[in-house]
Amino acid sequence: MPSIIEFYFDFYSPYGYLASLRIDEMAARHGCVVIWRPFLLGPAFAATGHRPLLDTPLMGDYAAHDFARSARLQGAVFRLPEEFPKAALAPSRAYYWLFDDQPEKARRLAKAVYRATFEQGLDGTRPELVAQLAEPLGIDSAALLAAIETPVVKDRLKRENRTAMERGVFGSPFVFVGDEPFWGNDRLDQVDRWLQTGGW
Amino acid sequence: MPSIIEFYFDFYSPYGYLASLRIDEMAARHGCVVIWRPFLLGPAFAATGHRPLLDTPLMGDYAAHDFARSARLQGAVFRLPEEFPKAALAPSRAYYWLFDDQPEKARRLAKAVYRATFEQGLDGTRPELVAQLAEPLGIDSAALLAAIETPVVKDRLKRENRTAMERGVFGSPFVFVGDEPFWGNDRLDQVDRWLQTGGW
Repeated sequence: MPSIIEFYFDFYSPYGYLASLRIDEMAARHGCVVIWRPFLLGPAFAATGHRPLLDTPLMGDYAAHDFARSARLQGAVFRLPEEFPKAALAPSRAYYWLFDDQPEKARRLAKAVYRATFEQGLDGTRPELVAQLAEPLGIDSAALLAAIETPVVKDRLKRENRTAMERGVFGSPFVFVGDEPFWGNDRLDQVDRWLQTGGW
Repeated sequence: MPSIIEFYFDFYSPYGYLASLRIDEMAARHGCVVIWRPFLLGPAFAATGHRPLLDTPLMGDYAAHDFARSARLQGAVFRLPEEFPKAALAPSRAYYWLFDDQPEKARRLAKAVYRATFEQGLDGTRPELVAQLAEPLGIDSAALLAAIETPVVKDRLKRENRTAMERGVFGSPFVFVGDEPFWGNDRLDQVDRWLQTGGW
């Protein structure tokens, strides 16, 4: 059984947020560790030709309804930010800036951004908000704001995004158990079962 | 609790096929009746701007993998027809030709077409195959072949398709429990729960 799960998500993906509330606990039950990998859905949409759900005719109304219904089903608070969707550059860059040296802090920051965005409906793409959420975690907010504007951090996110697409990631959330891909929050039960049984 | 479930599906949708194997039994457990409503995904794709899954970059490989994995999970035989996807005009028209007067025969024909297509990998869009599958059900195959070329039957399918889109159906399968919409084979467990609990 693989001991590592990779969790790809976009910071402005409601289904990514909902999956983020369950995945660590689920993995822990099976003795697995989750690597969180934020990426940007924008380039994936460019490849698939899809548009953000709420902007897609017919699907938009269903998606809005289903975001809320899915949240209720798992007992999660859910609120859509006013401006939605947006490209979540700042939190994604901040995440990878922290990730190599302080992966636990990176994850805690990611959770704080998701909560601010989908519990409070704040604009989680705003660098100032990300910096503000970082402070209580012992992260220097000025350093964060500077870091996410450096070429090295920008390039890191681009590289992560390229890797995601090379691996076939086209939606959020997208989970790998070893090489086995699972797309969607509604596939977490299958991930659970895969971890339990080793596959089918 | 609503006593009627509506099951929208395209005859060339693998996920529609997989859902068709479970939905009647699931509904019966809750004392509900299922109305099967074939429709054509083509016009819905025109509205959403999506393409058939296998033709969509990045998603195509995942979809092919997931069709088979989903089938294995529910213990279903699954085989993709050689030419896929196609517009399933003949079986959809034949279905509605039968539906008003002989709904049970219409459903049995639908099941036979799905089996031929996704168990045997035959071309279930071929009028001659549909007619051949109809014979053992006591349906006059010559009458069927004639009927599906009549304006009245063609218009019926067009009308059903328009109604589906007006109701927001954009994918296959698409299930309504009363007015509550559920998209996808992987939502059948939620349909089950909705029927059990009356919603959440």
